[in-house]
Amino acid sequence: MRPITAGIAIVVVLGSITVTHAQSWRPPTDAQRCPSKWGAGDQRGAANHVTPAIVLRAAQLIKTGEVIELGHVLSAAMPMPATRQFNLHVKRTVMNPQSNRRGSNEELVTSEIGQVGTQFDGFAHQSIESSHYNCFKTDEIATRTGFTKLGVENVGSLMTRGVLIDVAGLKGADILPDTYEITVQDLQQAMQRQNVSLQPGDAVIIHTGWGKLWGKENARYMKSCPGIGVAAAEWLAKQDPILVGADNFPVEVSPNPDAQISAPVHQIMLVVNGIHLLENLKLDELAAKRVYEFALVVQPLKIKGATGSTVAPMAIR
Amino acid sequence: MRPITAGIAIVVVLGSITVTHAQSWRPPTDAQRCPSKWGAGDQRGAANHVTPAIVLRAAQLIKTGEVIELGHVLSAAMPMPATRQFNLHVKRTVMNPQSNRRGSNEELVTSEIGQVGTQFDGFAHQSIESSHYNCFKTDEIATRTGFTKLGVENVGSLMTRGVLIDVAGLKGADILPDTYEITVQDLQQAMQRQNVSLQPGDAVIIHTGWGKLWGKENARYMKSCPGIGVAAAEWLAKQDPILVGADNFPVEVSPNPDAQISAPVHQIMLVVNGIHLLENLKLDELAAKRVYEFALVVQPLKIKGATGSTVAPMAIR
Amino acid sequence: MRPITAGIAIVVVLGSITVTHAQSWRPPTDAQRCPSKWGAGDQRGAANHVTPAIVLRAAQLIKTGEVIELGHVLSAAMPMPATRQFNLHVKRTVMNPQSNRRGSNEELVTSEIGQVGTQFDGFAHQSIESSHYNCFKTDEIATRTGFTKLGVENVGSLMTRGVLIDVAGLKGADILPDTYEITVQDLQQAMQRQNVSLQPGDAVIIHTGWGKLWGKENARYMKSCPGIGVAAAEWLAKQDPILVGADNFPVEVSPNPDAQISAPVHQIMLVVNGIHLLENLKLDELAAKRVYEFALVVQPLKIKGATGSTVAPMAIR
Amino acid sequence: MRPITAGIAIVVVLGSITVTHAQSWRPPTDAQRCPSKWGAGDQRGAANHVTPAIVLRAAQLIKTGEVIELGHVLSAAMPMPATRQFNLHVKRTVMNPQSNRRGSNEELVTSEIGQVGTQFDGFAHQSIESSHYNCFKTDEIATRTGFTKLGVENVGSLMTRGVLIDVAGLKGADILPDTYEITVQDLQQAMQRQNVSLQPGDAVIIHTGWGKLWGKENARYMKSCPGIGVAAAEWLAKQDPILVGADNFPVEVSPNPDAQISAPVHQIMLVVNGIHLLENLKLDELAAKRVYEFALVVQPLKIKGATGSTVAPMAIR
Repeated sequence: MRPITAGIAIVVVLGSITVTHAQSWRPPTDAQRCPSKWGAGDQRGAANHVTPAIVLRAAQLIKTGEVIELGHVLSAAMPMPATRQFNLHVKRTVMNPQSNRRGSNEELVTSEIGQVGTQFDGFAHQSIESSHYNCFKTDEIATRTGFTKLGVENVGSLMTRGVLIDVAGLKGADILPDTYEITVQDLQQAMQRQNVSLQPGDAVIIHTGWGKLWGKENARYMKSCPGIGVAAAEWLAKQDPILVGADNFPVEVSPNPDAQISAPVHQIMLVVNGIHLLENLKLDELAAKRVYEFALVVQPLKIKGATGSTVAPMAIR
Repeated sequence: MRPITAGIAIVVVLGSITVTHAQSWRPPTDAQRCPSKWGAGDQRGAANHVTPAIVLRAAQLIKTGEVIELGHVLSAAMPMPATRQFNLHVKRTVMNPQSNRRGSNEELVTSEIGQVGTQFDGFAHQSIESSHYNCFKTDEIATRTGFTKLGVENVGSLMTRGVLIDVAGLKGADILPDTYEITVQDLQQAMQRQNVSLQPGDAVIIHTGWGKLWGKENARYMKSCPGIGVAAAEWLAKQDPILVGADNFPVEVSPNPDAQISAPVHQIMLVVNGIHLLENLKLDELAAKRVYEFALVVQPLKIKGATGSTVAPMAIR
Repeated sequence: MRPITAGIAIVVVLGSITVTHAQSWRPPTDAQRCPSKWGAGDQRGAANHVTPAIVLRAAQLIKTGEVIELGHVLSAAMPMPATRQFNLHVKRTVMNPQSNRRGSNEELVTSEIGQVGTQFDGFAHQSIESSHYNCFKTDEIATRTGFTKLGVENVGSLMTRGVLIDVAGLKGADILPDTYEITVQDLQQAMQRQNVSLQPGDAVIIHTGWGKLWGKENARYMKSCPGIGVAAAEWLAKQDPILVGADNFPVEVSPNPDAQISAPVHQIMLVVNGIHLLENLKLDELAAKRVYEFALVVQPLKIKGATGSTVAPMAIR
Repeated sequence: MRPITAGIAIVVVLGSITVTHAQSWRPPTDAQRCPSKWGAGDQRGAANHVTPAIVLRAAQLIKTGEVIELGHVLSAAMPMPATRQFNLHVKRTVMNPQSNRRGSNEELVTSEIGQVGTQFDGFAHQSIESSHYNCFKTDEIATRTGFTKLGVENVGSLMTRGVLIDVAGLKGADILPDTYEITVQDLQQAMQRQNVSLQPGDAVIIHTGWGKLWGKENARYMKSCPGIGVAAAEWLAKQDPILVGADNFPVEVSPNPDAQISAPVHQIMLVVNGIHLLENLKLDELAAKRVYEFALVVQPLKIKGATGSTVAPMAIR
């Protein structure tokens, strides 16, 4: 596509003259990234990888039946941005009048239930300007009560091979430093150390140790975090995974070392490449047991038109 | 326990003299049912069946990797009791000021998220008088913001052998009649016809056809439904399953043919036997494909202190 | 303003050629209506009428101290559009541990509290295209958590002379017909019959009888209603009132007799003239007692950045 | 009532022997306080004072028409206990398809709307054990969706003579000390200094200066506050007011100097005497202008079965 390349060249030339610290990453244009490789109009992105063959491949990794849970408990005490909430209000007993004296309780929850706790990010969550995955436009798909396209109900339950990349382990650290950017080399060395490699359709799960702060140092947990940056994200996207997850709130390093860009990995994964994110995972047990390869199962709630879903994923080996 | 047996005998004798239409079922007393067979203080009931051996047994049923989803889409358009709600409010784009122009959307949900849609019932949901599973008392475990015991976060993700009992299929009916009580004989004949049998730790899934009304005849869906009654529930509980599910809102027949009792199967399963319920399942595909045995995976959200969780279960074969 | 007049003339000419049923009303352009007569940047519109002199004029109408309430009771049983809700969840007793045994109850309400029940419409509620009163633009003043301009907290408590115009009484009807458009002549004849006239700064309250359906025929109440149309609204706006209210949900006739326009009186009052609306009033007692002139007091909740407020106004004479 | 007196005597005698620091106040028994002086079954308490004569008396205090607002702005930034919330979610524009291009905005609020901000406390809010005003029992009147008796909708709009008692002014303090208990003498001296006296049916408004912290030192505002204690409350109750208000969150001193009792003034006013409370008033302007006598108007939202209502009261002189 020569015109586009030319356009980029001009930008770079201008930039080299006028800007001292060039912006480290620019999102691609709609023309450069649409339609997605999964076809025009596709709403599932890399979740299309979940074929019977991929599920069977995952099932065959189950040797002992041991289940390791990867979800944190959901409560008002969990770390959250100030703009989100998780409130649970018990609706105390209705005692039914019949002779068997059946008491019934339930609860009202008011929460950004798609975007709190251990969570699965859908494609309506993020955009470049107002253009989402596969170039669906916010104005055309957003209503007051949900998105008419790209809602998380399109994803479906996922089962695939999970691969843990233990970067904290590689570095011999309990927890990576507060704003550490994980590099491509880190990922490659960690996998080499663990003797695992990635295959298309995998769920890539990155251990930073940050999850140890969950519920203990909530303010620090949300203020910044170690995670992958632009380079590692682009390298990972090329490995063609179904999803990328981590034990921090945005999967990626936060804030980005380049102050001119905001959460670029969200755009690289969700918008550009159609790869879902799995945030706030609880990975301590998986890492401690050195479970590097496993069947990962995650069932996003089928919330019509939602940007994501709180989840309770499991690793099985 | 002779005194209790004697006590029941006396009740029956008195009943036969003084009451014309005897109540068809009476809940056991606390003394008769506590501690549960899973031990005093246990909060998981039959979910304790989920051992590595049980998970492995389920994994070995996966032959092709085909996934069949058993969860309905969650939206305000689904059938619900008038006292429950599901409202999703899109929080439209925040456009971050940095140069990569990242737009971010999320949504607020106000809902009895543990008790709407395809849902998993926990033990805090139901009581006999104010006594729950394992005789935890409502007043001692309920707070405004959740239950301190028996919350659904104690259950964990479940994977086990699922068995579909297609009662609608047995009867040659698309949908069983609106208030049909499924009998023990129905269950046994259906399994014989399907050439399956139950084992301890199974997830028993009952197909009534009622789910075909979901989203189409919501008022009828909620007004009544076919399902198991007291006799079938007590027989099923003896088969020692992890959970019992169906494609209707209460698993059980509603209203109960005995107008003097209200939803007794809820008490038999959740309170007396510690067996979870899985309601509002979407079973059309499973039944149409005659998938009678499969790996069932269900991941209740780990909502601290909640009475249940909306879920998106999957059958895998 | 000759250019504007000319512009309109052209439109009419073109319309007479190409359109069989010409649109009955067109909103003015920004240039035609901004700044408002209350000054550029003003956010209160006709509420600026509430000066000490206006309040004193109202106070002097109080002769007996009789209070007549004009607000309906707020509950889930009131008529509402399907897109709004009013849910009240009791947070049952917290019993404080101290010796005086103080029990405390409260409730969570989830509701479009500015736009349900007897309600006061603010200027952020409505726009022509995306331009509000005094030409504030939606994109510039809307955030996820409120409007930075035109929020109802700017209005303040109102006390002024209220005038009831009993159009149902004029027509000798309990309730005006379901889609009756009240005309200028209706208003004038009703006032003549009642021997009252309007003064600048009045609160004009129109009795249609429609409020008699409240809580009794909710579906009919919301489906349509009698009320003022474009002509009556424009005539009323010229009388320079603080607000216009009625015992129906939109003050105006609904649907508008011209199917090409939607709720034009909302634009005429809130957007063009900066006159607030008072909806879903309970006027039966006021009309039955023939109280045509009174002190009206209405206290919108000072909800920062809100589009309106549920209220409980009172008439005092 | 000799038996009761005897009973109290015994308590005192026993207390003088066995307890070093006697509890400073004990709530009366049901028998001692019910029925209330407003009659068995009454739900309005001192709000029954609002007769035409009382309203007229208030109206006649209006000499200039000056309005002084007494309500704070409602937003998520206001001081609240951690167990309450105020969330406003804008429901951005629906653009109606008709030719007049009418845009419509509204907002969802999730809040304990009866118990946040400037608020009016109703009788369902508080109890002694589980017995409310006029001995209505919590278990008999509470439902999941509201109280069947004592709901704030029973109160009605209030207009009466308001009297400001400026205790901060008496003490020459901007703000009274953080846990200062206002005494009977303080009230009497302040009124003497201001040359005002109380009459039955008044609204008594106490200025402590604490409101100056609102929105500025929220944590301090909620941690403690100056206010009336048991003695001043009992003296005030004898003056027979409609309500008692203040510029702090509980009207009363907090915590109570006697650590064995919790918010006793809430019980004295709401439960024992049927006198409503008006909390979190904004009194700076009233005090600065030395407006000691005025018409007070307050319109609690008519929320069916609610424990209270956020309000926006006004003083008029």
